[in-house]
Amino acid sequence: MERKIKVLGTGKYLPKRQVTADELDERLGVPAGWVEKKSGVSKRHYVTDETAAQMGARAALKALEAAGLSLHDIDCLVCASGTAQQEIPCTAALIQEELKLTRSGIPCFDINSTCLSFVTALDVMSCSMAMGIYERVLIVSTEISSVGLNWEQKESCILFGDGAAAVVIGRTPDTETARIIGSSMKTYSEGAHYSEIRGGGTQLHPSQYAQGREADFTFDMDGRKIFRLTSQRITGFVEQLLAAAFVKKEQLKAVIPHQASGMALRIMAGKLGFSDQQMVNILANYGNMIAASIPLTLHEAIQQGRIQRGDRVLLLGTSAGLSLGGVVLEY
Amino acid sequence: MERKIKVLGTGKYLPKRQVTADELDERLGVPAGWVEKKSGVSKRHYVTDETAAQMGARAALKALEAAGLSLHDIDCLVCASGTAQQEIPCTAALIQEELKLTRSGIPCFDINSTCLSFVTALDVMSCSMAMGIYERVLIVSTEISSVGLNWEQKESCILFGDGAAAVVIGRTPDTETARIIGSSMKTYSEGAHYSEIRGGGTQLHPSQYAQGREADFTFDMDGRKIFRLTSQRITGFVEQLLAAAFVKKEQLKAVIPHQASGMALRIMAGKLGFSDQQMVNILANYGNMIAASIPLTLHEAIQQGRIQRGDRVLLLGTSAGLSLGGVVLEY
Repeated sequence: MERKIKVLGTGKYLPKRQVTADELDERLGVPAGWVEKKSGVSKRHYVTDETAAQMGARAALKALEAAGLSLHDIDCLVCASGTAQQEIPCTAALIQEELKLTRSGIPCFDINSTCLSFVTALDVMSCSMAMGIYERVLIVSTEISSVGLNWEQKESCILFGDGAAAVVIGRTPDTETARIIGSSMKTYSEGAHYSEIRGGGTQLHPSQYAQGREADFTFDMDGRKIFRLTSQRITGFVEQLLAAAFVKKEQLKAVIPHQASGMALRIMAGKLGFSDQQMVNILANYGNMIAASIPLTLHEAIQQGRIQRGDRVLLLGTSAGLSLGGVVLEY
Repeated sequence: MERKIKVLGTGKYLPKRQVTADELDERLGVPAGWVEKKSGVSKRHYVTDETAAQMGARAALKALEAAGLSLHDIDCLVCASGTAQQEIPCTAALIQEELKLTRSGIPCFDINSTCLSFVTALDVMSCSMAMGIYERVLIVSTEISSVGLNWEQKESCILFGDGAAAVVIGRTPDTETARIIGSSMKTYSEGAHYSEIRGGGTQLHPSQYAQGREADFTFDMDGRKIFRLTSQRITGFVEQLLAAAFVKKEQLKAVIPHQASGMALRIMAGKLGFSDQQMVNILANYGNMIAASIPLTLHEAIQQGRIQRGDRVLLLGTSAGLSLGGVVLEY
């Protein structure tokens, strides 16, 4: 199950426009301080003219720079996002285009498990690399949630932010110990409709967007139901994942959680018994960035020196589906 | 590179409503016989009340039946489609729900490289299985193109049909030789906009659907440009793939091509020098079913007895991106 795969470099891109909790208080017509208190998010970014592919490409260049690599060192590009730039083709091909690799032949495809897309892509692609298919894979999570928020649903619209994060992974040199130690994912579709955007696909085509149906094309969330299902499942999930990886909770230098919401992060830490030193919480400055949250949090933890080579790290999240997912790795 | 993974069973589902070339001649106001001659498609199916998840679930049950397995023998469900049922969550979770596996925990996610999604999923998931992550994976391609066709673009709208195909893959018993022998994918985003649906994602949100912009939310294709780019690349691509797999053209019992169009199939056979005996062509009865075409063609070839255990088979296609992809396997 172990894979001798190493995180070589990470990068991020944030849209130019920053949106404060105060600004959203005004927009929503709620008392000053309500948005920040309710969401745990002081500021987040919204795109103005940036596209998902542009943000992804900029994060990718930063990740390559951090890894000391050039674009042509990459032999696969995976976009791991919960949102797509356009229906066809996959966003990875559009990122390749932005990177001016249009004749490179570098294979491009998307992996999507909503907020867990990065975790799924890391898990799956580390296996392809361990089997000798690829040498260095660029995984890009790039999300624009701001176009799909329901401003009538105050509880959910205040949580999100736009942005991108990218991670380059490669095979670990023989003399080093970095590796994927274990991974797990569980999907419970009893919660498939607890968080969703019903429209936009083949069931409710954009042509059906009309007065009165707008809400079907924006994000809809039942926070209480998600909380209940997640609470039931997450403790057992993490215990099994860590046991299978022969890693104890206290051996984890850092837990990189999906930045779902302030409440989600408090519950996760509390229920699972992780300390504040372990839990990396960057929610206040970014909001929930869908699949970009976990790689961005990993990036910040590395930048802040909270993770060093040799440290054991848990990436952990929940997503629409409803899914739980995690990867235990040695950085 | 080899993976001891076996196709255990295949299945399909076709919508109840069948649409003939004659019916489309009338709809488009073209002379009788034009649609069939131009597309090579005599009939295809369009959904009436079926959803993508329902079609996928029905195909999945057939594939499990063919494999002699039950739903609970599966430990991963991948939806490998170019279209999604709704924006969030991933279609795989919705298929799990249709299969009444709502509390099973079976991990669900989507892999998308448009028409090559099945080939990509087979490639990637066979590596995860070879690394011991999963025992038996259900890959489902389920496509509804009929809601997203541009009836003003006669050249493209006549090609497509709706439907689903599913394949169960498992580890090969020690006494057998079935395996993935080789795989390759190349993406040339110089062709990223040769076939696309520009709207529906974050760049052109459904809220922007309005009089005059409808075409942005339907499929747009420049057949001549696709033809030119594919022609330049496909011979070298197939030669490299077969050489790396140590398989000669004449050793292939069957070539399972993406059923892109009558012209695409003729060009592929001609340029690559495959015989009519090798090329499996089911286009006339189904049309281009996006990612479902390749697994459906595999299913038909198995059903018709054109592929036996021990035979070497090439899955081969092109997709929006523009990508070329193939897998060489021993059935």
